[in-house]
Amino acid sequence: MPGLRHLVSIDDLSLAEISQLFEHARIFSENLRDSAETCRGLIAASIFYEPSTRTRLSFESAMLRLGGGVITAADMSVSSASKGESLADTVRVVSGAYADVLILRHPSEGAARLAAQYSEVPVINAGDGSHEHPTQTLCDLYTLWIEKGRLEGLDIVLSGDLRYSRTIHSFVYALARFGANLVCVPHQGLELPDYVVKRLREEYGAEPQAADASCLGDLASSSDAVYITPTKPHQLSLYTEAQRGLRLVDHVDAVYMTRPQTERFGEADSATGYIHLDTDIMSGEALREAVVMHPLPRRDEISPEFDADPRSIYFKQAARGVPIRMAILGMLLGRLDFTHSPRRHLEATYPVNAMGNPCPNMGCVSHTEVRQAPASYRIVSRFPVRAICAYCSRELNLTLVGAVGRPVAFRPDAAEARRIEPAELVFFRDLAEAASAGFTVGTGV
Amino acid sequence: MPGLRHLVSIDDLSLAEISQLFEHARIFSENLRDSAETCRGLIAASIFYEPSTRTRLSFESAMLRLGGGVITAADMSVSSASKGESLADTVRVVSGAYADVLILRHPSEGAARLAAQYSEVPVINAGDGSHEHPTQTLCDLYTLWIEKGRLEGLDIVLSGDLRYSRTIHSFVYALARFGANLVCVPHQGLELPDYVVKRLREEYGAEPQAADASCLGDLASSSDAVYITPTKPHQLSLYTEAQRGLRLVDHVDAVYMTRPQTERFGEADSATGYIHLDTDIMSGEALREAVVMHPLPRRDEISPEFDADPRSIYFKQAARGVPIRMAILGMLLGRLDFTHSPRRHLEATYPVNAMGNPCPNMGCVSHTEVRQAPASYRIVSRFPVRAICAYCSRELNLTLVGAVGRPVAFRPDAAEARRIEPAELVFFRDLAEAASAGFTVGTGV
Amino acid sequence: MPGLRHLVSIDDLSLAEISQLFEHARIFSENLRDSAETCRGLIAASIFYEPSTRTRLSFESAMLRLGGGVITAADMSVSSASKGESLADTVRVVSGAYADVLILRHPSEGAARLAAQYSEVPVINAGDGSHEHPTQTLCDLYTLWIEKGRLEGLDIVLSGDLRYSRTIHSFVYALARFGANLVCVPHQGLELPDYVVKRLREEYGAEPQAADASCLGDLASSSDAVYITPTKPHQLSLYTEAQRGLRLVDHVDAVYMTRPQTERFGEADSATGYIHLDTDIMSGEALREAVVMHPLPRRDEISPEFDADPRSIYFKQAARGVPIRMAILGMLLGRLDFTHSPRRHLEATYPVNAMGNPCPNMGCVSHTEVRQAPASYRIVSRFPVRAICAYCSRELNLTLVGAVGRPVAFRPDAAEARRIEPAELVFFRDLAEAASAGFTVGTGV
Repeated sequence: MPGLRHLVSIDDLSLAEISQLFEHARIFSENLRDSAETCRGLIAASIFYEPSTRTRLSFESAMLRLGGGVITAADMSVSSASKGESLADTVRVVSGAYADVLILRHPSEGAARLAAQYSEVPVINAGDGSHEHPTQTLCDLYTLWIEKGRLEGLDIVLSGDLRYSRTIHSFVYALARFGANLVCVPHQGLELPDYVVKRLREEYGAEPQAADASCLGDLASSSDAVYITPTKPHQLSLYTEAQRGLRLVDHVDAVYMTRPQTERFGEADSATGYIHLDTDIMSGEALREAVVMHPLPRRDEISPEFDADPRSIYFKQAARGVPIRMAILGMLLGRLDFTHSPRRHLEATYPVNAMGNPCPNMGCVSHTEVRQAPASYRIVSRFPVRAICAYCSRELNLTLVGAVGRPVAFRPDAAEARRIEPAELVFFRDLAEAASAGFTVGTGV
Repeated sequence: MPGLRHLVSIDDLSLAEISQLFEHARIFSENLRDSAETCRGLIAASIFYEPSTRTRLSFESAMLRLGGGVITAADMSVSSASKGESLADTVRVVSGAYADVLILRHPSEGAARLAAQYSEVPVINAGDGSHEHPTQTLCDLYTLWIEKGRLEGLDIVLSGDLRYSRTIHSFVYALARFGANLVCVPHQGLELPDYVVKRLREEYGAEPQAADASCLGDLASSSDAVYITPTKPHQLSLYTEAQRGLRLVDHVDAVYMTRPQTERFGEADSATGYIHLDTDIMSGEALREAVVMHPLPRRDEISPEFDADPRSIYFKQAARGVPIRMAILGMLLGRLDFTHSPRRHLEATYPVNAMGNPCPNMGCVSHTEVRQAPASYRIVSRFPVRAICAYCSRELNLTLVGAVGRPVAFRPDAAEARRIEPAELVFFRDLAEAASAGFTVGTGV
Repeated sequence: MPGLRHLVSIDDLSLAEISQLFEHARIFSENLRDSAETCRGLIAASIFYEPSTRTRLSFESAMLRLGGGVITAADMSVSSASKGESLADTVRVVSGAYADVLILRHPSEGAARLAAQYSEVPVINAGDGSHEHPTQTLCDLYTLWIEKGRLEGLDIVLSGDLRYSRTIHSFVYALARFGANLVCVPHQGLELPDYVVKRLREEYGAEPQAADASCLGDLASSSDAVYITPTKPHQLSLYTEAQRGLRLVDHVDAVYMTRPQTERFGEADSATGYIHLDTDIMSGEALREAVVMHPLPRRDEISPEFDADPRSIYFKQAARGVPIRMAILGMLLGRLDFTHSPRRHLEATYPVNAMGNPCPNMGCVSHTEVRQAPASYRIVSRFPVRAICAYCSRELNLTLVGAVGRPVAFRPDAAEARRIEPAELVFFRDLAEAASAGFTVGTGV
């Protein structure tokens, strides 16, 4: 659909657009009950393949506050999905005349991207597996922006389970894009995954280094803290270089807590000794002005007693989900003024030319909806050649690459690989795969 | 309730009313977002005893687009039904003040007829077991009417599972009523049931004959095609009489595909070799102008690749469910102008005078809600005597009939049977039943 | 929240307010479709931890008829509750910006009181375990008021399961408050519980005495009827004192039937011979003007044939749930005029000073949400000292009471107990508990 905007990933929005979303959200928040004409006559469909009361209700509240209507399938997994219908068909039906915007939650990674391809109306990703949850991220950024007046140069401590939390991953990319500094103080064994760190470095230009988090007291006592800063940092004046090259963390703007995602834990993972944030832990000088955020629901990682502390803003954060989603709905439905131009997508999407689907993520929609989601990719680096799945953003494992019609394969970092046009790339996981496709191995390998 | 209109069966509407419904739907479809005053202040209740996302959401969207409100019980089977409440009581409560129109789906055949008896507001049948689903049928007819400009004389191929599909049965009766011609090319063993053919012949005056479907190529290759036409056909000029009395099918207006209803299959049924419709199959000259319809959801019976063919209109068909349901809601709620008078029901309903319930359908609501749905019948033929259940429309098996107060029983085709007043009829399944009721067998037997 | 009104218990409303609610409801009922501006722009959230179609739909209908919007979590037990979130946190999130009023059903007794403590918007109790269901009670009272023109002095027969029915208990307290007379004709073994009778006597000044219910015929045949009347009765003229001090029940204004709550039955309970109300049973002279009410759903305790009797008003009663809930929503949302001042709560709430939670009700939210619902109590009698749980209203079992900081314990009826300030009370279930807390037993024990 030409001109149709979706919100599948936070990367679908330019920084200027995000800022303008925040301005609209702030206006809405001044009187939530005063915008009932904005989306009058329009309908949002909540299509949830996984139950989620919080996210669903906040979207539906936002749509109602804009004067629109809502139709809801709160548990698609027990209804038409049980009749064996593909997600693509469901999306086409619901977007046909039922609704003017689709709010989709689905367990498969990349499901929202697939939906956007087939929908006749804007699609909003309300969580696709452990891939993206952009409106939660926007809500978090908006909360920081309201509380601190800016995002650039903020020093944000991320604590708890940094490994399995979907929210954290989207959030760190976005913070890096906005130029915030990140201090990771994870629970032992639940550090930020390597692929996230790698992507932070390569796509967002953020550079991790060891940090001296001694100023954070018990908050960081059991952690090897890591400090991640944009390579062109903004507010280094706040930081003191420690002797051994450690960055001393002596002022924190926000602490972002996460619950242990025990439901995704592997055998080696444990929540024993998981942080229990309370007033004591927050008593250090470096934390004096740090607001405490949490995507909720919480269990024991934040003491209920801390709720009375003015720095506890997690309930305000949740409440801000409504105005920010009002702004998102109003934007995608074309009912709000946006003067900034949308983000130019430099990376095009190409269909995979090989026989197999090279996406290594078996939870990706390209594996679960094979016919409707033909494998495709985006190029994230031309030299060496690096590509990600166009649905779930997982990096492809490339041992060899070739070009359609010229049966010679090269290493991704071979000079010859550089000359292959993106649309002609063929990916091989190993020599055998290349050989079976009739490719010989080039000189560069 | 005097003056209260329901939509339990498509037979509740006259042809003139259906045409006017289509006119209203067409006006709505021109701008779905422009009718928000039509049902302002009114509420529809979606009461679903079986989950159905598609039907439910399209009704709810229709009501919201008319400016009305919606209350939803998407899975009644887990709520008050579990407290043992009768359907009649639930209907009386919800129709009391909660809602201005009831949209009901229920697994028992005849449930909507029962609901209409007890409701204080209009009832719309959104599917009652395998009995009727009139709004789906109206949506299908409306789609044909929009695509082809008329219904009379159209030549419609029905393909796939013609045996277990509830949608097909309602659809063929309606097509027959409108004077369309039907070409049945079923999957082996899934032919149109005898009772449907019988009803087509006896109630709708449609006459089946063997067809030469060789022009349809692979679409009909494994089928013994049957051609069913009104006895006063309209457009015979399109058809050539073949030598052996076969009707040659050389032009098709629409192909209506159905999925195999495997969940209702008996032991002898199989979907092996089920049709897989694609561009190849649709390449025959006779199918050049044939639009392809499907009630959805589909599985493999239509190739996704065919979606790009302009003749694939199943997603448009689904989208048209919204304007047609807007027209239905507006009509039953008295918010649209209808100049045509409603259908006169010639067949009255009579209570069964015998001790037992003669309805042979154990899934009928007259068996599941015994106290609220006392067995009753309609006469469909006076000579020989034939009657159907007033709830589920299944024909009663009559070996003998008698009259209240005169203890002599006759065969349904006996001259004496003719003289019994409909309201006094007593039905017996066999001689023993008649004897146990104190009836002797009359001379005609 | 200062100024925030909730409806947790019917005791939250003064009699004058209830009367004014009825006046508003009556106006709404004259045209349910004529009040669509009253709550325009406001949102109600239905948060149901137990399914309840009837209650939920009538609230949602009421809100829509007022022009407001509704967001629904019809089965919280399968969504965020499964992620281990506390009720308090859920309430804070949903009341933050999502909704303007919260409609809560929860299986824990006292859950609505807890919710009210944490909510930023009005909370309406739609049933908390077997504790309260105030809007059902208001609907029942309103129906009587409409049918009989008053509540004071009415003679109401309560029949069936008076022991396990939550509805009955709320209803009898309210009837006593309004000065109605109660005639209990329970099913054998399902009499009004002692604690209810005690509370009727002590808090509402109602006095039970044996009744001669022979005038009620079969309705009361197997029961030892009890007559409960305010100590300052209003319409004694209607009653004849029988010889042995029995009050003769010879005129009844209403019969309130209940179904057997078999799901709560103990081993000794049985529904064998449960009353089956029909026209025969209602044929006695004393019942000539008695309307028959039922909270629904019914099973077999009222014959469907009786539905045609003009005294059967249970479906009207259900329908009145909508206007009464419109009045409640309009009142709590500040959109209706209320000239009467709210009820002054004489009993303050005090935190429990002892180590243990003295509430004997293990289904109370003070036991299931320990951190968010710290044990607290209200004083219902100063001499002897009697206290109830501030959440579930269950009376605490007090063997000994003491005062904080003065380690001597007394019997609740000791003169010394009288002098302890309510806020300083400490409760002990037995001597051992007092001793382990370092208290000695005072002279009065």
